Amino acid sequence: MAKPTPLSGFPELLPSARVVEREVIASLAHTFELHGFANIETRVVEPLDRLAKGGEVDKEIYVLRRLHAAADEADAGLGLHFDLTVPFARYVLEHAGHLEFPFRRFQIQPAWRGERPQEGRYRQFTQADVDIVGRDELPFHHDVEVMRVMVDALDALPIPPVSFQFNNRKLIQGFYRGLGLPDVTAAIRTIDKLDKLPADKVAELLVGDAGATPEQAQRCLELATIRVADTSFVERVRALGVVDELLDEGLAELAAVVEGCSAGDHQHVMVEANLRIARGLDYYTGTVVEIFMAGYERLKSVGGGGRYDALATDGRTTYPGVGVSFGVSRSLIPLLADGVLAGSRPVPSAVLVVVVDEESRATSDAIAGALRARDIPCEVAASAQKFGKQIRYAERRGIPFVWFTDADGGHEVKDIRSGEQVAADPATWTPPTEDLRPQILGLDKLDHRGVSQ
Amino acid sequence: MAKPTPLSGFPELLPSARVVEREVIASLAHTFELHGFANIETRVVEPLDRLAKGGEVDKEIYVLRRLHAAADEADAGLGLHFDLTVPFARYVLEHAGHLEFPFRRFQIQPAWRGERPQEGRYRQFTQADVDIVGRDELPFHHDVEVMRVMVDALDALPIPPVSFQFNNRKLIQGFYRGLGLPDVTAAIRTIDKLDKLPADKVAELLVGDAGATPEQAQRCLELATIRVADTSFVERVRALGVVDELLDEGLAELAAVVEGCSAGDHQHVMVEANLRIARGLDYYTGTVVEIFMAGYERLKSVGGGGRYDALATDGRTTYPGVGVSFGVSRSLIPLLADGVLAGSRPVPSAVLVVVVDEESRATSDAIAGALRARDIPCEVAASAQKFGKQIRYAERRGIPFVWFTDADGGHEVKDIRSGEQVAADPATWTPPTEDLRPQILGLDKLDHRGVSQ
Repeated sequence: MAKPTPLSGFPELLPSARVVEREVIASLAHTFELHGFANIETRVVEPLDRLAKGGEVDKEIYVLRRLHAAADEADAGLGLHFDLTVPFARYVLEHAGHLEFPFRRFQIQPAWRGERPQEGRYRQFTQADVDIVGRDELPFHHDVEVMRVMVDALDALPIPPVSFQFNNRKLIQGFYRGLGLPDVTAAIRTIDKLDKLPADKVAELLVGDAGATPEQAQRCLELATIRVADTSFVERVRALGVVDELLDEGLAELAAVVEGCSAGDHQHVMVEANLRIARGLDYYTGTVVEIFMAGYERLKSVGGGGRYDALATDGRTTYPGVGVSFGVSRSLIPLLADGVLAGSRPVPSAVLVVVVDEESRATSDAIAGALRARDIPCEVAASAQKFGKQIRYAERRGIPFVWFTDADGGHEVKDIRSGEQVAADPATWTPPTEDLRPQILGLDKLDHRGVSQ
Repeated sequence: MAKPTPLSGFPELLPSARVVEREVIASLAHTFELHGFANIETRVVEPLDRLAKGGEVDKEIYVLRRLHAAADEADAGLGLHFDLTVPFARYVLEHAGHLEFPFRRFQIQPAWRGERPQEGRYRQFTQADVDIVGRDELPFHHDVEVMRVMVDALDALPIPPVSFQFNNRKLIQGFYRGLGLPDVTAAIRTIDKLDKLPADKVAELLVGDAGATPEQAQRCLELATIRVADTSFVERVRALGVVDELLDEGLAELAAVVEGCSAGDHQHVMVEANLRIARGLDYYTGTVVEIFMAGYERLKSVGGGGRYDALATDGRTTYPGVGVSFGVSRSLIPLLADGVLAGSRPVPSAVLVVVVDEESRATSDAIAGALRARDIPCEVAASAQKFGKQIRYAERRGIPFVWFTDADGGHEVKDIRSGEQVAADPATWTPPTEDLRPQILGLDKLDHRGVSQ
């Protein structure tokens, strides 16, 4: 069979890049668990009618069919999920009797869309979602809680700085209502186009499509231009002179989210109120957020989410939720391709144990066993080549240490980067912590080591 | 929308069962990495022609189609992979220029088959595979290496004892050839039916389908009944009086595998030579293994694998490989369903921080923050109910500790299992290690705690 060609939209990582992805996923999971979020995985398929109810029916869903299905047999009626929210909502409904509410969960899994692939947009992509879902009710403070969790989680990652841009649907809706707009929903949909169209065009549409007067359209644009890194937006909105109860509620909620997420000692996360963020999806009812990565604005948002008063309902019970999603593939694959991040080596092994000759392979195996018993990853050389060749074998894999045994049973270990070689005991020798496992090399270390990928 | 019903063949785990699956996967990954195996993930789809070349074309593959594809548009030509070997072989071919050989990899991912679901057989199931692949050649000692890795990995799991039953295709083929059987391949396929048919029926088929004489058939059955936990099979095979070079090679290899895998201090793994194991797949060429779990023989094998001299080839280069697969879903889901294993709690939180009133929620958040800074997972109570209700909130989630703050800023922490309550400082207090994270409760602990699931 011929050499296979890559499938567009289905990126795959080489082992050293996979090191980065795994470490990032482990770091995310660690933060989520520190905050009490339980992990679940859902099956990758959902009934088509449920996928179609997910708010956006225009998704390019992949539908499944059994290869050996009879010619007249219909599709299995199943599709691959296109996000983690729809399957989570179904999971909550299906398993509600076995869950405690409020239910905090995180989920890190692939999803699929049959869209045209481009940088940051893939047909198979991994997302990391955190959500809190209540039964019948979910107090507002969980909005602050779940957003802070993601702030903490992304702050711990070795990626470029990210910006959380918050808004609140109650604020927008209240403002529009107080302003007397005839069609609030149409106005929100129109304002959401501000990142694609110039302001005067959006103003035209507000008049034409949403029935606004030119003056109302102007106020909508004024609201949408407010973008600050603190709670001073409250005064600026008030200065626009619109009075509405829902607006007050939205202002208070947004202020609490911005304040709550700004608190603490974050290094790489910026928190802003950006009053043009709307997130078109109909099901958001309060807090909304989009996340952007510095230097990668071309990817658009690398994450987002918000509050939905009806994440799921079975007719009798309604489950409100609030959550936020981070695009693991969307952010990491461009960073890996650009060489901003790299794995320090493609193998877990910290040590290569040299083989003197095939007859003494068992001796080398025993040394490796002694190291592994103390949690030191290692491998035994594949063949009893000359030592120089075995050292190059380690070099090609980025294995930092090579272990030698002499005829008298003496042991020495060589750091092949420095060339330093010292006597060592397999029962006690330990590599420096930073060499024990493959590491993520960030921009600084890459420059330092001259790695350009 | 109505309450969803479960999809047959697509099992999903509740959070506490997912604790078990995650810990098992983490333990497997840890062992694989100690032995220098790099992790990869492949995309879940493969071109159909590659799935069909996987040795078994009778698999119930799930084929993909885009929902919004034009009516006259063909299928995407893609199917979900049904194992991890076919995608790995393709990955090796596609990325060979970027890999170092011998290449050790492990892969823990779901696979899909549209088969009729039954206990241990699901339409979506997770497998853990380790393989070593060489370019052009792969010395035999890697057979021993990769099988020992899986022995170590399964020995570290809290599952019932497992038995590795090894055989060697060279041994069988050499024996049949030395015996003068006219159709060695047909004979292997027939002997493989011994677990479904009685011996005399298999003997009949050997004569009828494989062209054996009744005496040859008898010898084949005698070979197949040899099953020992050491290398004494060598003498017993010799005693059958067949002489063949390939047989000698197979005997030596099988002896080395049995010896190598028996070495060391394993608690829950039994290693046997079982000369009726054939594994019907055509591509095995040397070592073969099937893994069984004590008390769960009804699941048939929970793992298996072997040596293939042509795992992959692009026409110019051939990549021999040896590997073994463990059925994570196949073994864990029945164990979870039977209550043999369970997670100790459905949430990561070790501590619930009580909320006195909504005004002082920030105080509770700060305590939680101090605990998290020292890697102690915790959550803050969802509402400022009476303390008794907050304690029951923790109880229902299995959270072992509840943290109280009094009006003077004093702190106390209560172990809600013992009722013991002591003064504590959020900057220094640490729970016992076994309470820090959810644990896997095995049979003993379940009995002890009276949990029956």
